[in-house]
Amino acid sequence: MPERAEPRVAVLGLGRMGAPIAAAFLDAGYRTTVWNRTPEKAAPLVERGAVRAATAAEAVASGPLVVAPLLDTGAVRRALGPAAAGLRGRTLVNLANGTPEQARELASWAAGHGADHLDGAMMALPETVATDEGFFLYSGSSEAFARHRRALEVMAPAHYFGADPGAAEVHDLALLGTGYAALTGFLHAAAVLAPAGTSPEEFAPLAARWLRGMAGFLPELAREAGSASYGGGVSTVDLNRAAVDGLIRLSGAAGVAADVHGPLKALLDRRSADGHGQDSFSSVFELLRAGGAAGR
Amino acid sequence: MPERAEPRVAVLGLGRMGAPIAAAFLDAGYRTTVWNRTPEKAAPLVERGAVRAATAAEAVASGPLVVAPLLDTGAVRRALGPAAAGLRGRTLVNLANGTPEQARELASWAAGHGADHLDGAMMALPETVATDEGFFLYSGSSEAFARHRRALEVMAPAHYFGADPGAAEVHDLALLGTGYAALTGFLHAAAVLAPAGTSPEEFAPLAARWLRGMAGFLPELAREAGSASYGGGVSTVDLNRAAVDGLIRLSGAAGVAADVHGPLKALLDRRSADGHGQDSFSSVFELLRAGGAAGR
Repeated sequence: MPERAEPRVAVLGLGRMGAPIAAAFLDAGYRTTVWNRTPEKAAPLVERGAVRAATAAEAVASGPLVVAPLLDTGAVRRALGPAAAGLRGRTLVNLANGTPEQARELASWAAGHGADHLDGAMMALPETVATDEGFFLYSGSSEAFARHRRALEVMAPAHYFGADPGAAEVHDLALLGTGYAALTGFLHAAAVLAPAGTSPEEFAPLAARWLRGMAGFLPELAREAGSASYGGGVSTVDLNRAAVDGLIRLSGAAGVAADVHGPLKALLDRRSADGHGQDSFSSVFELLRAGGAAGR
Repeated sequence: MPERAEPRVAVLGLGRMGAPIAAAFLDAGYRTTVWNRTPEKAAPLVERGAVRAATAAEAVASGPLVVAPLLDTGAVRRALGPAAAGLRGRTLVNLANGTPEQARELASWAAGHGADHLDGAMMALPETVATDEGFFLYSGSSEAFARHRRALEVMAPAHYFGADPGAAEVHDLALLGTGYAALTGFLHAAAVLAPAGTSPEEFAPLAARWLRGMAGFLPELAREAGSASYGGGVSTVDLNRAAVDGLIRLSGAAGVAADVHGPLKALLDRRSADGHGQDSFSSVFELLRAGGAAGR
């Protein structure tokens, strides 16, 4: 009854993310084979029941699924180079940081050695591995994703974005971009408030609360943008344009970088000039996807 | 025993926010006098026990606390102009939208008529009035804030930011700025993903989850920025600079406005060029507060 056999996984790389990932597989009852370039990192996991592989090839030989939360795709290639012959029929899950192009290159290399390939992007911290707080994005072989989904979900909720091996990294960048914008907006606002006597630490809990509210607002924005229906909202381009103008003036008066909100102001000004001042704020999407306020 | 008397409040303006605010006071057991420019809006509240005032002056005469969730400060002035003589000894809570300057002007006008004044900014939606999801910001008379805090908390959790009547609006703009940045980042990311076949609606739940994670990250960022301690983090300027570069490349390849993240890229590039590439991401705060990537 092979479907009832103890599930097996190999984890290559026991760094910040690799160590909690290997621990999560152990906790979930997987026969977990671990390998790290510097072998001492395996010791606490071996104590908890992991099998230590002396080489990456030995780890790859241990079972059908090879998970590689290494630092970057170069490290994956260096680790797996000597183990390439053993990859045939395995599924390689590349969890390294990398660009979409690097993910695609690694997928080609793995295919050349007869391995199925999934690229994964870890939207998680070490402490949120194996919780519902983080999540991982995948792309590549849909068949491998379906076959190993249960194992992948041991690490984090798993989301699949299609056969292009670069798609997970593309979605990773899109999420990072959303986050960067929020963090930059927060730091800018904290700088604006400093002359008013409010410290970043005092501002943070309010800003966090506000950001959580904005997160709840995204589905509505997405519906508007996805259907290009921008009527009927109370949060119009012109209303928000006045607020952004006020913010930029305040920013200038405080001696704080005012250009952070410059791109948004240009988008709102352009929408308004084009006669869309009463459309919903989200209608700036139309300009964004067409290349920006000035057009392509 | 006057301290056990039924508490009283007057609500001027029964629009999107005014109506739920008056309802919240009724639910909390306040003798609630309501006035609206178009009187029919008062009907459902009168049915629930509100006292209808025929004029703003009559509402002002009804008790010590006058709450004005009108559209803008001009509407507050127009409503209260004929009632000005009755303001002496009252506390006026201006909940209208307005700039910090408009809040200060209204405070002066109210002081000229012998009224205490609080400016309030409503960080809430009609449906989050009287819940813990929204919150209101106040500035102006600290004595009036302390005296009426219990009543103010009927509407939403109340935060006080000092005697400058403009401070609530300044903090409002700072919060709006944090939110605008997040929403713009989201819409930009959604535009980048469209060519990859992911719709805004599909992206929204993941982005919301990611934004909530970022909200949880703000206190750490604030500690770093507040103490100018940018060492020891794993999320360095150079690491994030590479990701922002990747995002801008991806954006360009998708034909999507790449300038949205231009200001952040300039900040990260400048930090790196200044030898701070290994500092935490939050260290861009140093440039923001000093006028931006190019300096003042």
